Amino acid sequence: MSEPRWLAPQQAEVWARYRKVYRELQQAQDQQLQRDSGLSAADYALLAPLSESDDGVLRARDLGADVGWERSRLSHQISRMEKRGIVVREACADDARGSMVRLTEKGREAIEAAAPKHAECVRRLVFDPLTTDEVRLFGDFLDRILGAIERGAR
Amino acid sequence: MSEPRWLAPQQAEVWARYRKVYRELQQAQDQQLQRDSGLSAADYALLAPLSESDDGVLRARDLGADVGWERSRLSHQISRMEKRGIVVREACADDARGSMVRLTEKGREAIEAAAPKHAECVRRLVFDPLTTDEVRLFGDFLDRILGAIERGAR
Repeated sequence: MSEPRWLAPQQAEVWARYRKVYRELQQAQDQQLQRDSGLSAADYALLAPLSESDDGVLRARDLGADVGWERSRLSHQISRMEKRGIVVREACADDARGSMVRLTEKGREAIEAAAPKHAECVRRLVFDPLTTDEVRLFGDFLDRILGAIERGAR
Repeated sequence: MSEPRWLAPQQAEVWARYRKVYRELQQAQDQQLQRDSGLSAADYALLAPLSESDDGVLRARDLGADVGWERSRLSHQISRMEKRGIVVREACADDARGSMVRLTEKGREAIEAAAPKHAECVRRLVFDPLTTDEVRLFGDFLDRILGAIERGAR
């Protein structure tokens, strides 16, 4: 095997920072949501795509792909949310082994009440520290990383 | 309540892209690890800090803080890894209710074998698409976001 390409010191530092930003942002959003809305970040992650879908219903499989979670994690989280009455599981009409997840009226009220403070939190933590030009550049970097991931997956 | 500060269209797009990068990067790393080393990204996330700690042992609580997972997710993951013999749980000497997680010899061999290809994957997907100056700028943006999160938490 050829010599491995380890990360250069600057890269290792930026890579550690990237993971730290994700982790701390997740925790900060979780605390904000819990405090202001009684929802967890995991609740919000599932409620958001459901609330944006037609009729507030998605296949469990598509919802899992949307958040990028393993099946067992998704299933535990849906069960917790079902107990609280914010989503319900339904049988899938055209796939006997598949299941659908539907937002309840209570779930829709919960996400609509949570959304304004959640958006304010994202603006304050992610976008207020950057100028408009920097946001554009940040988006461009992310776009190129995404391109490399998608090329790698082919 | 004053008018909520919703995300501007450009911000909403960059925010969606940021989450997509995290999700797809996680999946790409998971596939690379599974294929080359038989480890999952969740295995690697716990093995890495253990392998860098003194004697390969950490309090479960500190390990959880390091990866930013909820207690139940951490506990399930440690149980799965314990069954495969790559970590063991131990009682905590100075905290009767706490537990420690220790890397086994087999766990250390697994992460040492996985590390070179994992580093190559991170370089290829995250750093090859950016110039050295752009990596520095990306790190600077992340640093300012981190600063906003830490100021918000005080």
